[in-house]
Amino acid sequence: MGDTSTARKVHPLDPLQPGEISQAAEVVRRLNEHARIFFRAISLAEPPKRVLKDFLDNEHAGETTFVYPARQARVQAYIDETLHELVVDLDSATVASDDLLRGKHSYIDTEFMAQVAAACLADQKVQQEIQSLKLPEGATVVVEPWAYATDGMKDMRERWTMAWFYMRLSDNPDANYYAYPLDICAEVSNSLEVVKIYRLPSGEHDAIHNVAKEFDRQKIHSNSEYHPDLVPERRTTTKPYHVSQPEGPSFSIDGNHISWEKWTMRLGFNYREGMTLHDVRFEGRSLFYRLSLAEMFVPYGDPRCPYPRKAAFDLGNDGAGINANNLQLGCDCLGHIKYFDGWLSTSAGEPLRMPNVVCCHEVDDGILWKHTNFRTGNAVVARSRVLVLQTIITVSNYEYIFLFLFQQDGSVSYEVRATGIMSTAPIDLGTKVPWATVVAPGVVAPFHQHIFCLRIDPAIDGHRNSLVVEESHPIPFAGESDPYNPFGVGYTTKSQTVERETGLDLDFATNRTFKIVNEGVVNPTTGTPVGFKLLPCYSQLLLAHPDSWHGKRAEYAAHAVWVTRHRDEELFPAGRFTMQSTGGEGIASWIRRRAGDDDDDDDDDELSLVRDQDIVVWHTFGSTHNPRAEDWPVMPCEKMAVGLKPASFFRGNPALDVPISSQDENRSVLVQGG
Amino acid sequence: MGDTSTARKVHPLDPLQPGEISQAAEVVRRLNEHARIFFRAISLAEPPKRVLKDFLDNEHAGETTFVYPARQARVQAYIDETLHELVVDLDSATVASDDLLRGKHSYIDTEFMAQVAAACLADQKVQQEIQSLKLPEGATVVVEPWAYATDGMKDMRERWTMAWFYMRLSDNPDANYYAYPLDICAEVSNSLEVVKIYRLPSGEHDAIHNVAKEFDRQKIHSNSEYHPDLVPERRTTTKPYHVSQPEGPSFSIDGNHISWEKWTMRLGFNYREGMTLHDVRFEGRSLFYRLSLAEMFVPYGDPRCPYPRKAAFDLGNDGAGINANNLQLGCDCLGHIKYFDGWLSTSAGEPLRMPNVVCCHEVDDGILWKHTNFRTGNAVVARSRVLVLQTIITVSNYEYIFLFLFQQDGSVSYEVRATGIMSTAPIDLGTKVPWATVVAPGVVAPFHQHIFCLRIDPAIDGHRNSLVVEESHPIPFAGESDPYNPFGVGYTTKSQTVERETGLDLDFATNRTFKIVNEGVVNPTTGTPVGFKLLPCYSQLLLAHPDSWHGKRAEYAAHAVWVTRHRDEELFPAGRFTMQSTGGEGIASWIRRRAGDDDDDDDDDELSLVRDQDIVVWHTFGSTHNPRAEDWPVMPCEKMAVGLKPASFFRGNPALDVPISSQDENRSVLVQGG
Repeated sequence: MGDTSTARKVHPLDPLQPGEISQAAEVVRRLNEHARIFFRAISLAEPPKRVLKDFLDNEHAGETTFVYPARQARVQAYIDETLHELVVDLDSATVASDDLLRGKHSYIDTEFMAQVAAACLADQKVQQEIQSLKLPEGATVVVEPWAYATDGMKDMRERWTMAWFYMRLSDNPDANYYAYPLDICAEVSNSLEVVKIYRLPSGEHDAIHNVAKEFDRQKIHSNSEYHPDLVPERRTTTKPYHVSQPEGPSFSIDGNHISWEKWTMRLGFNYREGMTLHDVRFEGRSLFYRLSLAEMFVPYGDPRCPYPRKAAFDLGNDGAGINANNLQLGCDCLGHIKYFDGWLSTSAGEPLRMPNVVCCHEVDDGILWKHTNFRTGNAVVARSRVLVLQTIITVSNYEYIFLFLFQQDGSVSYEVRATGIMSTAPIDLGTKVPWATVVAPGVVAPFHQHIFCLRIDPAIDGHRNSLVVEESHPIPFAGESDPYNPFGVGYTTKSQTVERETGLDLDFATNRTFKIVNEGVVNPTTGTPVGFKLLPCYSQLLLAHPDSWHGKRAEYAAHAVWVTRHRDEELFPAGRFTMQSTGGEGIASWIRRRAGDDDDDDDDDELSLVRDQDIVVWHTFGSTHNPRAEDWPVMPCEKMAVGLKPASFFRGNPALDVPISSQDENRSVLVQGG
Repeated sequence: MGDTSTARKVHPLDPLQPGEISQAAEVVRRLNEHARIFFRAISLAEPPKRVLKDFLDNEHAGETTFVYPARQARVQAYIDETLHELVVDLDSATVASDDLLRGKHSYIDTEFMAQVAAACLADQKVQQEIQSLKLPEGATVVVEPWAYATDGMKDMRERWTMAWFYMRLSDNPDANYYAYPLDICAEVSNSLEVVKIYRLPSGEHDAIHNVAKEFDRQKIHSNSEYHPDLVPERRTTTKPYHVSQPEGPSFSIDGNHISWEKWTMRLGFNYREGMTLHDVRFEGRSLFYRLSLAEMFVPYGDPRCPYPRKAAFDLGNDGAGINANNLQLGCDCLGHIKYFDGWLSTSAGEPLRMPNVVCCHEVDDGILWKHTNFRTGNAVVARSRVLVLQTIITVSNYEYIFLFLFQQDGSVSYEVRATGIMSTAPIDLGTKVPWATVVAPGVVAPFHQHIFCLRIDPAIDGHRNSLVVEESHPIPFAGESDPYNPFGVGYTTKSQTVERETGLDLDFATNRTFKIVNEGVVNPTTGTPVGFKLLPCYSQLLLAHPDSWHGKRAEYAAHAVWVTRHRDEELFPAGRFTMQSTGGEGIASWIRRRAGDDDDDDDDDELSLVRDQDIVVWHTFGSTHNPRAEDWPVMPCEKMAVGLKPASFFRGNPALDVPISSQDENRSVLVQGG
């Protein structure tokens, strides 16, 4: 285990190189010589924290000789039809572990989904149903297969797929077929058999019906397109806007290591989480060991069968890495842009290049700080420069833009922008349902939620951290004779340090603040433990009933903030395998098991202590998206943002030395007249 | 009354021109020939809505002949020591009304404040106290007078001023004297007499004491400066970042009329509210009659006398117009900038030019919408351009940046950034108090709140609007046999239209949404009333006790959302005169009076109906600012944002026709290597 070397190029946190991916596949193949192997994912098995943290400490201490952690790959593959997760040691070219996952399903297989679509169109019964719809001439039927969200009606050991039907009326393949959801859908087995065809309900109290309903030609309309070929008339009022950086960007990049304005960090990328950040530091001081979007769940609010089967774990089922866009220069960002490629793998175990999956660039964010001394009239302004790390994913109809935004004042925020096209369902003209918005003739966009979970693995000046819940409360007021608060205006904070793993809720009414602190390090200015605070995104939690399949599967969606003790294997708060999961594998279950509710074993209880421990903080947030007309046909971004802000971590404003803003430097142009 | 003309240049919403200011003063002087007149404010008396709305309707209907509302000035002046508010008719050069305001005080008089400071320094007792402090050699004492916040200890008919003492140790006049708060403060009368000197408390249970305490030289330190002369070492890593707009800005300006990307609006400016917006439309459709910051209150949480006297109504007492910064090209914004001047008046009634009080420019805001058709691989991206209208005010130590941000998708947001220097108080070294943060040796920044109120006077497709409170709730779930919600995942919205004037609270847990709708106009796509929704800023309300003077005076701070029937005179939710106010004049009092709680008169009740009426919606928001070490010596901006977003107001995405983003247009630069 391990390798001592100064020459070694690959950092333990660097994603697997193409050659390493090939090598890992080869090791698995060699060990299963006669088996049929279908690779699903080959990615870096990040070194255990206990090993990696020592490595990082040495690295930052300026040591020149490193003990490298073992370089390992995590391989997910079907070996003779059974899902395995193997850890391959790349140094020794051996399999370190082989986890057999009977009954579990890997994430969505795009090739299989295409086969499902083809199977539907080849199916006689499906064709009969399509015939019975009497579609307009020239219509092209489009089948959109979705993973089957557990609803208790099928045996979860088999893989099921729901095929939803749309049509395209234009010859242009970029026409928006979501504008014509058809009245049918199909349930398809793992062996590509169409097991059942549903006619979709229309009215509020509709059950599934078997009466053929012809496509209503009055639904044909022309204002659901977004592609420029089909919406050629564009406003001409938006004048060009260029960002020029005559001396280049302020960041510097060395492989996956990024340095910018006192910040340093390492970029990771994997098939499931997409962009991840590691070893995030400011002025060399450790802040976060790992930052990642850990899960997202998109349940729909239409209660009628089979719609509850529409509920996607877009990370666990789909993968933010797999679905990452190839970002284009000048389209997805302005200025000087560094793009990072990602490497995934094919089903044959070959390295697959994912070009431009993350972009890195700077933006100006207005004023960072300003003060005018009213006695001298002298104004001093510093402008805010922000480092953006952006990745964008397409999950069928929807797009998600994920951004980490680093600020010069030591804050970092995580922003999600939801855009793309809403998933639609058919409705009879003139009808309404109370869980959907009519967005075009015969088309509803059902109410739904987007519930994200940001995993924050802090290392605030080290790995022993605590979560403090601080609230602002009035000092009790007994009236004018009150000696302590005679005017009734005083207030103070009340702080409580969380002792055990738990889920917590937000409360803006008490200014409830979640601080991650290091109780062992005192800020010399304030005399209080150094910390960072969460600026939460206030949002509704899961609306589905806790006893529903959604509730059982998306455990993290029951609270806004969770704190757990760090465990290397706990990265996914709805469980490692969300596809057709049946619940009981998420963050609430981990906590419950360790709390030892079911026995009185004190040893178990010990495992759930989180004060002054290596902890992980999870923030659940999102949006209850009850569509507006304006979200159609393509949705202007809905933004959600979470912040992490120093809370007496530094001795003073860490952005005090940012250059003073001046016209000499900034070269703005005065608009005259008007 | 009124004037029919096609040639007239001044729009009824244009602020007063310099000549009109002089003329108004002249009219008042002529009528009070032998009186001593001290002008405080001369600003546009906006025409009554019943008159102006007809004018605007005609204007937008393309009428060529206009009946102009009477052009009137509102004049606030002390006439022989008594405060008056007069309305001067400029067309007839007559006084239309003269409101005598005995017992009321005008906003802070900067010249008087300078006299207070001088009087303190000239006062023997003050000098004795300063002597007793035994300040270091070379110290310059700086007196900072504050308006006296009502605490029940003084007769409010007289004007009182609190003088707080600091010292500067550097010769540089831009040295940060807030780093050395002294142990004394003084209470000064209207006749500039120092009535009382307080020695400030230090410990938590300290009462006011009379023991002279020498300045502790161990408090002397060097890291509380922000001015570049005093912090010469600046980071050099931040590379230049220019915005170039080769074809100029996308906006066009005609006087105070702004057109940009389907939006039109008129900019107003007055001494109290600063920047105001009027007649805001999109594609010619009316959205908002008037948008303005209506008040802000900054109470401090230190309960010890005399600190409760520190509580500022920064609009009512100070004035956002009076204190507006002269914005500098290249410092306060980037790109092509149009600056607007404001015109206020001197105490002699002369016009006073306030240069560059508002800037107008564009920023790029990343992606507006994107979709990749996964079948064709074709990505379509539109970038978001934002129009920024920015004003910045300095209120002694603090700065506030106020921005309206107009988006191409029909949304507008209002952002506040708080920056500047925190107000400080002295503390003994090694001591702590539970309502303040130690930010430097012997210096605390007390906990405080910033409570803003945004006044939204909507005109959603006309003036008859309603406020709808919509929540998202699970459909009840009776288990698997439930015919309506068999899987327990369904949810719907529950809406309630507010019938009477009231204050309401936020609730993210139910996704409570406040929609301003026009029940008379149905969106043809969705079949629902057209509307705009508030994206609130979730924040704690006033912590001071409701029975405290703060509570009585800042009535609007008791609820997050208020709805009232429009009345021309109701612009200020803490009352017209906040200076040393005693309460009972704010929004809650208006509502209570009209609700006729004190009698059973049905006629009164009628006045409080708000459904399908001309309504005003008020949003109270802000921050509970418990200082961090990082907020010192100058505070990185703390951002608060409120949004107004179309909620099925348009038939579809109004930004669908924004140009598709391309490298041809945007000219980004690829960063190679790394």
